[in-house]
Amino acid sequence: MLHGGDYNPDQWLDRPDILADDIKLMKLSHTNTFSVGIFAWSALEPEEGVYNFEWLDEIFENIYKNGGRIILATPSGARPAWLSQKYPEVLRVNASRMKQLHGGRHNHCFSSEVYREKTQNINRLLAERYGNHPGLIMWHISNEYSGECHCDQCQHAFRHWLKQKYDHDLKALNDAWWTNFWSHTYSDWSQVESPSPIGENAVHGLNLDWRRFVTDQTISFFENEIVPLKEMTPNIPITTNFMADTFDLIPFQALDYSKFAKHLDVISWDAYPAWHNDWESTADLAMKVGFINDLYRSLKQQPFLLMESTPSGVNWHDVNKTKRPGMHLLSSMQMLAHGSDSILYFQWRKSRGSSEKFHGAVVDHDNSSENRVFKEVAKVGETLEKLSEVVGTNRTSDVAILYDWENNWAINDAQGFGMKTKRYPQTLQQHYRTFWEKDISVDVITKEQDFAAYKLLIVPMLYLVSEETISRLKAFVASGGTLVMTYISGIVNEHDLTYMGGWHKDLQEIFGMKPVETDTLFPNDKNFVTFRNGTYELKDYATVIESNTANIEGVYQDDFYANTPAITSHQYESGKSYYIGARLDDQFHQDFYSELIKDLSLEPVFPVTHGKGVSVQVRQAPEHDYIFVMNFTEEKQQVSFETKVTDMVTGEDLTGEITLDKYEVRIVEKSTN
Amino acid sequence: MLHGGDYNPDQWLDRPDILADDIKLMKLSHTNTFSVGIFAWSALEPEEGVYNFEWLDEIFENIYKNGGRIILATPSGARPAWLSQKYPEVLRVNASRMKQLHGGRHNHCFSSEVYREKTQNINRLLAERYGNHPGLIMWHISNEYSGECHCDQCQHAFRHWLKQKYDHDLKALNDAWWTNFWSHTYSDWSQVESPSPIGENAVHGLNLDWRRFVTDQTISFFENEIVPLKEMTPNIPITTNFMADTFDLIPFQALDYSKFAKHLDVISWDAYPAWHNDWESTADLAMKVGFINDLYRSLKQQPFLLMESTPSGVNWHDVNKTKRPGMHLLSSMQMLAHGSDSILYFQWRKSRGSSEKFHGAVVDHDNSSENRVFKEVAKVGETLEKLSEVVGTNRTSDVAILYDWENNWAINDAQGFGMKTKRYPQTLQQHYRTFWEKDISVDVITKEQDFAAYKLLIVPMLYLVSEETISRLKAFVASGGTLVMTYISGIVNEHDLTYMGGWHKDLQEIFGMKPVETDTLFPNDKNFVTFRNGTYELKDYATVIESNTANIEGVYQDDFYANTPAITSHQYESGKSYYIGARLDDQFHQDFYSELIKDLSLEPVFPVTHGKGVSVQVRQAPEHDYIFVMNFTEEKQQVSFETKVTDMVTGEDLTGEITLDKYEVRIVEKSTN
Amino acid sequence: MLHGGDYNPDQWLDRPDILADDIKLMKLSHTNTFSVGIFAWSALEPEEGVYNFEWLDEIFENIYKNGGRIILATPSGARPAWLSQKYPEVLRVNASRMKQLHGGRHNHCFSSEVYREKTQNINRLLAERYGNHPGLIMWHISNEYSGECHCDQCQHAFRHWLKQKYDHDLKALNDAWWTNFWSHTYSDWSQVESPSPIGENAVHGLNLDWRRFVTDQTISFFENEIVPLKEMTPNIPITTNFMADTFDLIPFQALDYSKFAKHLDVISWDAYPAWHNDWESTADLAMKVGFINDLYRSLKQQPFLLMESTPSGVNWHDVNKTKRPGMHLLSSMQMLAHGSDSILYFQWRKSRGSSEKFHGAVVDHDNSSENRVFKEVAKVGETLEKLSEVVGTNRTSDVAILYDWENNWAINDAQGFGMKTKRYPQTLQQHYRTFWEKDISVDVITKEQDFAAYKLLIVPMLYLVSEETISRLKAFVASGGTLVMTYISGIVNEHDLTYMGGWHKDLQEIFGMKPVETDTLFPNDKNFVTFRNGTYELKDYATVIESNTANIEGVYQDDFYANTPAITSHQYESGKSYYIGARLDDQFHQDFYSELIKDLSLEPVFPVTHGKGVSVQVRQAPEHDYIFVMNFTEEKQQVSFETKVTDMVTGEDLTGEITLDKYEVRIVEKSTN
Repeated sequence: MLHGGDYNPDQWLDRPDILADDIKLMKLSHTNTFSVGIFAWSALEPEEGVYNFEWLDEIFENIYKNGGRIILATPSGARPAWLSQKYPEVLRVNASRMKQLHGGRHNHCFSSEVYREKTQNINRLLAERYGNHPGLIMWHISNEYSGECHCDQCQHAFRHWLKQKYDHDLKALNDAWWTNFWSHTYSDWSQVESPSPIGENAVHGLNLDWRRFVTDQTISFFENEIVPLKEMTPNIPITTNFMADTFDLIPFQALDYSKFAKHLDVISWDAYPAWHNDWESTADLAMKVGFINDLYRSLKQQPFLLMESTPSGVNWHDVNKTKRPGMHLLSSMQMLAHGSDSILYFQWRKSRGSSEKFHGAVVDHDNSSENRVFKEVAKVGETLEKLSEVVGTNRTSDVAILYDWENNWAINDAQGFGMKTKRYPQTLQQHYRTFWEKDISVDVITKEQDFAAYKLLIVPMLYLVSEETISRLKAFVASGGTLVMTYISGIVNEHDLTYMGGWHKDLQEIFGMKPVETDTLFPNDKNFVTFRNGTYELKDYATVIESNTANIEGVYQDDFYANTPAITSHQYESGKSYYIGARLDDQFHQDFYSELIKDLSLEPVFPVTHGKGVSVQVRQAPEHDYIFVMNFTEEKQQVSFETKVTDMVTGEDLTGEITLDKYEVRIVEKSTN
Repeated sequence: MLHGGDYNPDQWLDRPDILADDIKLMKLSHTNTFSVGIFAWSALEPEEGVYNFEWLDEIFENIYKNGGRIILATPSGARPAWLSQKYPEVLRVNASRMKQLHGGRHNHCFSSEVYREKTQNINRLLAERYGNHPGLIMWHISNEYSGECHCDQCQHAFRHWLKQKYDHDLKALNDAWWTNFWSHTYSDWSQVESPSPIGENAVHGLNLDWRRFVTDQTISFFENEIVPLKEMTPNIPITTNFMADTFDLIPFQALDYSKFAKHLDVISWDAYPAWHNDWESTADLAMKVGFINDLYRSLKQQPFLLMESTPSGVNWHDVNKTKRPGMHLLSSMQMLAHGSDSILYFQWRKSRGSSEKFHGAVVDHDNSSENRVFKEVAKVGETLEKLSEVVGTNRTSDVAILYDWENNWAINDAQGFGMKTKRYPQTLQQHYRTFWEKDISVDVITKEQDFAAYKLLIVPMLYLVSEETISRLKAFVASGGTLVMTYISGIVNEHDLTYMGGWHKDLQEIFGMKPVETDTLFPNDKNFVTFRNGTYELKDYATVIESNTANIEGVYQDDFYANTPAITSHQYESGKSYYIGARLDDQFHQDFYSELIKDLSLEPVFPVTHGKGVSVQVRQAPEHDYIFVMNFTEEKQQVSFETKVTDMVTGEDLTGEITLDKYEVRIVEKSTN
Repeated sequence: MLHGGDYNPDQWLDRPDILADDIKLMKLSHTNTFSVGIFAWSALEPEEGVYNFEWLDEIFENIYKNGGRIILATPSGARPAWLSQKYPEVLRVNASRMKQLHGGRHNHCFSSEVYREKTQNINRLLAERYGNHPGLIMWHISNEYSGECHCDQCQHAFRHWLKQKYDHDLKALNDAWWTNFWSHTYSDWSQVESPSPIGENAVHGLNLDWRRFVTDQTISFFENEIVPLKEMTPNIPITTNFMADTFDLIPFQALDYSKFAKHLDVISWDAYPAWHNDWESTADLAMKVGFINDLYRSLKQQPFLLMESTPSGVNWHDVNKTKRPGMHLLSSMQMLAHGSDSILYFQWRKSRGSSEKFHGAVVDHDNSSENRVFKEVAKVGETLEKLSEVVGTNRTSDVAILYDWENNWAINDAQGFGMKTKRYPQTLQQHYRTFWEKDISVDVITKEQDFAAYKLLIVPMLYLVSEETISRLKAFVASGGTLVMTYISGIVNEHDLTYMGGWHKDLQEIFGMKPVETDTLFPNDKNFVTFRNGTYELKDYATVIESNTANIEGVYQDDFYANTPAITSHQYESGKSYYIGARLDDQFHQDFYSELIKDLSLEPVFPVTHGKGVSVQVRQAPEHDYIFVMNFTEEKQQVSFETKVTDMVTGEDLTGEITLDKYEVRIVEKSTN
């Protein structure tokens, strides 16, 4: 189990005392793995062609001989000043077509031939020098890839990408983007420009293809970076660190990670939830963390790494509150529970200057092992040492929620509905909540993954959906699956062109009904839906439904569609479908999914009785379940095990009722033989 | 009575099935008029000098032979990409002096000689080909003219415009703009630049002349467009579509429509009120619509056209709620009631792609005549067929409110008072409200129009007023008119230079008092005015008044001007004047104007007894009144006719009390012989 | 005592009647001093090398022969258009590297050699012509220096400044700025660029040095301006007008006035509090005004001038409310009470046009001496005539609060803590409040000033502190001083590099404790501190403290640090120190400082018994106290003098209890023999 994090000795090369302290403190903190070299380019190549690897040699040696391992980063996340100065083409041009100056980080042009050459060159030197070092366990490519560039090279690359996609047929592009609208027809490829606030920005097909291109060009840059690594160190796995978007804590939106994941050996991500904030409960936030973990785990259906986290607070939120005692262990264990094989930090040691000097770290400016945060890290380290069996184990799920990056881009870009109430990722988290509360494992999958593995597939707000995906959904239900779909689904195809002639006939067949109007509501509008014995408030969206062979499960209470269907179900061949026409409250989702859970006999992998705010997540080995019982509340909680389990940390056997303190976590083991 | 709207067959040229469906659906929807060619330039001239009119020939034929008529648009609202690419001078430069890229629409340089040549050329070809087609009933010039350009050509044109205005006398310009302030004196014409956030932006005289220039240059561009049309089709009337500003629904501010109106044969406008919103009552919003209608009707004192509206919702509001059943008929009839001779839509058919695909339309993506919206359109069509007598009839008013675009620009630009509480157009709507509630017809006129035609002239917040206008106001009162003026009036002349030596002596004569201080209040400040037996809250502004021969009608309750005059009246020669010193609440305006209505014996054209939220508006033919009785509430309303009238839709005779359903409208006829 | 203000006759040169009225009105208003020539460059040099001084000669003569005096301004605050047109290098480039157009004011490049030459030239001509005029009493250099430029000349000057500072040692700069973070190491001086939103903006050392450079370059420009004045008029004192930042009314932040003050003979400033606003009480605002006055007075430990103020309202606040009757006298007297030797206005007369025509003035557009504002000015004038003895007298204080511009820049730039809750200047005002309420004189001093003069030194939030300052603080306490420090102090050195190894050992010695964590709270988080018998709410920040030899004076009530020290005290050698760990409420500060006031026997210079909202401030001559008793409430207030005093305006003797009306001020004299 990897424990450690980003280590920047290049900031302390004139402080050998500090470098020596680091080695001592690493042992004291029970850490074993360090990501080195992120942003070290200036230290490695202080002038063009002048290299300085000696310091890194020493770091490798010192860490390794003290029992540690190294994740080696390629340094492309930030360039040396000499590189920008000599080759200005590496600087980005923003969407307003302003050339950026040197500075910051994560801001190189992904198309620049020079930058590709320079990064490949330094990566090759790193692979040559360290590829066979026994301490090297993984490559960390660049850092938090993101952003986009609108320079001439990128315009050229974008046009090239489009020619490939549309097979050199400009009419096909014009048709796909519906350019006859507003006279936007292109008569020559050279007229195509990336979206811009000072130019074209309302052609949704262009916007969508641009986002696809940005993902593909980022991957292309990444692929260029790893050429020498794959060549020279074919057995060293490759990762890059994914992100989430704050403050709502939703999956990172700017890049389609479902594409990127295919190019990685291991997914890793940087998790920075704002624990103890004043706008949501701890359990609410934990649920959102669980959702993203389940998405990033499901992308490759394998364990992932937590590449960055903070043992205390961050320094870039509006309010940078520190983790309360116990929260660091609890929040770290949650990552493991959902599939992580590591607890890594940004950062090992706080820097003395510049913009991240107050970001949480294992070692503070006091350089001490005696402060609270250091001790909490050491406790996590000690705990992880008891959990080595968990490494490599996975999770299984009968339930899947479909998340689609392209759909998120298209729905956010759509002119229509409520401009501020799209909230596609947040809606998925709302659907995920009940399963998390009931400890039922969920995969969050993409449209390309196999649906047949699941009993229940939940597809909220799938605005953009190809005919191919519709067929696959139909096949899923036909073969006995249960499908849930909601308002604003099935509106446009993969080009963001609306389906014509009413809702797609395959969808009508699956659901036995069709949506005929989507009503969009003002924030103060009120309406309700009755379902079973309950009445639930709706917000934002209400679909007017024309039912054909569907069963009416819920009806609207008010407005011109009062007493018409709001929720329907339908038996289609061997399977069943549900359509939820309105954006309903949390209570509805709990009641609705509780019934489905019962109907489909969905169960936790390992049942533990507990109150609200406790989460139980399981990682499964062939003959063992590793069960994480986590109290995400500020109160003591009673939990009850029906069968005997063994506490992996204390070794004690547990059965019946036990008490969890505020934020307490117990990791227990159960043989499944 | 025209019924139909914007039709874009150029988006569907490869779908003859859709074009055939259009003809069938036009009949089913009882529509008869279609605006064609807006944004069709790429379809008409796909490459420079290569024309393709065949598709438009067919559309003309098909519509005409099926009984429809065509409003033909010139295509200048959006350029083909080849035009921007070959002639970059047509692209705008924004106020920050950034050259825009190709894209969007309504963004050409109004000064570009090339663009003027190209637009006149395509317009000439359209006029040659379709000018004699019997289906052609009107020209629709470009679309929603707006915006401004700061390129070198425009700077040159602006300097030329200024030289004309100031008779080549640079000192006259320096004097008018008070440039000795902050050492801004121009010593050469070439130093004059349009206002810019990165340059000059606080010289109010410059800002005001720039806005005037923008209007004049827009009209100049328009005049250039219509040269071939006037030449070849002298009998085909010309319009362009005006707008309103959301969300408050006030007249469009960026162009002085009072100048533009003189260049049009017919005014038309695009009305998009946010019906059923959650911040105002339906009646409040209807009142605002009435105000704009009465302004645009009064500009030429003749009926106008509703050029664009939506049968359901739009797609560009923050929340795009659809019209509830009945609202489409009601809101359409309101337009007629105030002077429209058409109900036209944007758009006939929803496009499949790009940014307006979710904007309301007669034909939805389902391509069906069976949905609710289509049926509501057809009902409007059937109703309009009963109302052909109404076409061409006008309205008469004894009351006028003065609206001045230049005053709005100047008052918004003024540094002083409350920066966020100017609200000139909204204040006029507040004064309009009582008359609307009492069914008394109001003209909303400009400072150039004849005042003598009215018994009562209301002039709120006329901050900018020339000596000429002051004379005309004086003559109006002297001849027996009643004039109402308010706080922040008579402050600056037409150059935005303050009057010196106290309030203008003519104003002092008219009102028998003078304002000596304008107090500006914070939002939470509280003060009251007593008037008759009432006490009314004031907000934002309170004028300290020194009364001379005026009667004190209301006094302040509080602050250092407690017990001093807040409202005065004055007999001046044969007329009477009122000065309202403070921004008072709605109740005050209702009580104040109710008294005036009684004093001046102002009456509805046709009296109908009804409760609040019902509006009765009349169009008058020589021997007939056409009376629109409209329920803008969500409840049933009793209304009562004193004399017998005939329902124009059902043909039944009505007298005494009848009940209007929620949103119901009755159109009745009364012989005035 | 100077009374008068900014006078712009250059706006009225073609209105001799107005200029004649001015002289009459000056007498009627009891004014005697006028700042002339601000923004008069176009009038003085209408074309390059063509001068026109005749009008200014006349103004000098007319004012002087009518008993007035002149403060002559250099005209660099706004350039003529011909200058920008011929020498575009004088135009600023903003941080986004956009060259500005001509326009506005206060926007020249401080590095431009041409502009330095041109300004020195016009200043020399002014000094030659008016330097010996008996009416000239002071130079007013430019106007409200502010802003920054990023042009190539400025980049060059910045690099030059850095080379000087770092002794041509690029490694020293890299070390100071911690550029090894994010690979930002400079390998050549030419790579250094000023901070930019499109480039480098997160290197705090760079940002801090840039702000220092901007101050130094502004002073360098100022020094260039005064060369001919110092040469030709060595006895005429020199000032420039400082500012405050609205709306919170805190010291001006963009320039380090503690450096600038050393270059001035007299400090003057422009005070525009938003009296009568709706978010704070009059007394709250008066306290803030007092704080800034005490800072600007303490910078040179001598009287200052009020260079600009308004007799009514301004025109650039969001809501421009006018001063209520009495407030003008009261607020003017407050300036005197804290050390001003003048009451000067912007502006003498309202202009007719452009952006400041509605800014308050002595003479309104009515050109009358009969309006309320004019009369209130005249009353101030009459009062000032009774107060000539006060001129030149100063104040003495036993209490000092330390204000540091560099600390404010660094703490605001810091990534960490709460982004919106830094509020360093506002926190100082919170500490100042109790002393203001108790009429105890406070100096607000800088880190360079002598600490030994004070019994009590208050140092809140001194995030950035050099080792030298730490030593001086230590020496202050060791010698018997009492020192108060708070949360977020002693974090970084003068390069914004954190202290390593825990809190500085000297600080630990002084305080007998060390802060170990700074907790940052969300707005809705709640916690409390108990101190003596009280419980006080904390907000935003709470320091976890490890006490060594300190006394625990207050403890936290809640959270994981409940019952641990929140407030400590410590005897260090002959002195005492207090550490306040949390941001506590006003009541705490009142109770805490009341105890200290008692312990240290701090007393008002002249004791007057009064209720809340009354302020008593004293100016001290060798044998007289001049006592300002001011009622900053909207109610009558009883005040009581223990000994007999003489009212300086009425001449009457006062003793015992008297009543002050709302906003009333009494200025009384007391012999101190």
